Amino acid sequence: MVREVITSKDNPRIKELRKLHKKKARSRTGMFLIDGEHMVEEAVGSDQVIHHIIALEDYSFTFDASRFEVILVSLPVMKTLSQLETPQGIMAAVSYAAPEAAGNKVLVLDDVQDPGNFGSLIRTADAFGFDRVVASPGTVDPFSDKVLRSAQGSTFHVSVEVADIKSVIESFQGLSIGTSLAQADYLDDVVQQDPLLIVLGNEGRGVSEEVLDLVDRKVKIHMPGRSESLNVAIAGGIFMHHFKALK
Amino acid sequence: MVREVITSKDNPRIKELRKLHKKKARSRTGMFLIDGEHMVEEAVGSDQVIHHIIALEDYSFTFDASRFEVILVSLPVMKTLSQLETPQGIMAAVSYAAPEAAGNKVLVLDDVQDPGNFGSLIRTADAFGFDRVVASPGTVDPFSDKVLRSAQGSTFHVSVEVADIKSVIESFQGLSIGTSLAQADYLDDVVQQDPLLIVLGNEGRGVSEEVLDLVDRKVKIHMPGRSESLNVAIAGGIFMHHFKALK
Repeated sequence: MVREVITSKDNPRIKELRKLHKKKARSRTGMFLIDGEHMVEEAVGSDQVIHHIIALEDYSFTFDASRFEVILVSLPVMKTLSQLETPQGIMAAVSYAAPEAAGNKVLVLDDVQDPGNFGSLIRTADAFGFDRVVASPGTVDPFSDKVLRSAQGSTFHVSVEVADIKSVIESFQGLSIGTSLAQADYLDDVVQQDPLLIVLGNEGRGVSEEVLDLVDRKVKIHMPGRSESLNVAIAGGIFMHHFKALK
Repeated sequence: MVREVITSKDNPRIKELRKLHKKKARSRTGMFLIDGEHMVEEAVGSDQVIHHIIALEDYSFTFDASRFEVILVSLPVMKTLSQLETPQGIMAAVSYAAPEAAGNKVLVLDDVQDPGNFGSLIRTADAFGFDRVVASPGTVDPFSDKVLRSAQGSTFHVSVEVADIKSVIESFQGLSIGTSLAQADYLDDVVQQDPLLIVLGNEGRGVSEEVLDLVDRKVKIHMPGRSESLNVAIAGGIFMHHFKALK
């Protein structure tokens, strides 16, 4: 069987796919792009809704691609779609299917702005058995290239959603903790909790006052040195490690 | 007194200063640029060698600038020097004066590549009383814009140096720990140590085998979830929090 290879950057399907780098097109279509072998394998292995696989004409698949619609493209076309410096030859257009989550360990993000921080936090949640991540609408889009890349496939292992975090906190059946620098208990003095919800805040202002008013307990990390604060992803890593799932 | 304001981007002094965004010029001159009120205040307050302060003509100083050589510039000139989207109106050309370090808590970096990771690690070291950071020559330059920005001034609180990390590890009087995913003890089982040296590795390959051969103990973080690894800055944060200074 000879398959047609798209060699024009102006091909209408390629143009539509390229629009998915913009949040507007992602919202309109409910689709996003993932890039590279590891990411596509993770999506395939975790039952994501895969609309198209985009591959270089000579790409050697590491999985059975016959059940997917594969769009073959030339390298110059792939380069217009990929954000990687060296495209790995495979991408996919995907709709997110959140994995089942028990929701006993929940991470809530109040307007985190940096895509690298958000992605690292999803990856770290996945490492420590936090299976649900809820981001406020003011948080950077979880399905942007940079967030997906920093999350390294963990987006497909934990349930990631954008929601009204206040209702999520209010309806949570368990202990809710907000990170705060003022009038807070030290993390080292807080024992393991389950179910548990942790709220992390914006890089500049931290967790907003109105959200802190809703949590059961304000907690901070003891810093004996001279920094006034920690990067939010590092603080989140220390919190999630402290409260990690037991197995 | 009327001071001359530089309004030309091609002014020879401005051109020389602009070169400091390149590592080559930083190595040649031993100088680097810092940007923004917080960074300049930190440098002034921690006795760095300040060659020039560069300020907008109408900048309101928050410190006594009379003892420094101040170069006044127009906004268009400042914009050619600053890497910030919105320049804060003050920069400085500085030579690094490493602060005194007891060296009881040392962080060693084996070829960390991402400037944000390196900067966050310096900031985190400062938070937890690690007062000496030693980077291998293969690590990204500590005095590049992005590393300095992520470190948020902590570069001036802890001693940061580029050195042969193997000799530093070999001559260290205390316990040296290397992070490793294979055949390692769990961090939770390792008690507080002092003096202590922690080695973190490259984002892709971790700590190199030849460096791991030199450390006293290999240690890993227990990850009950599905991520195979953590971002190096987050792993470093969890390690330094575990072994933080006591006051």
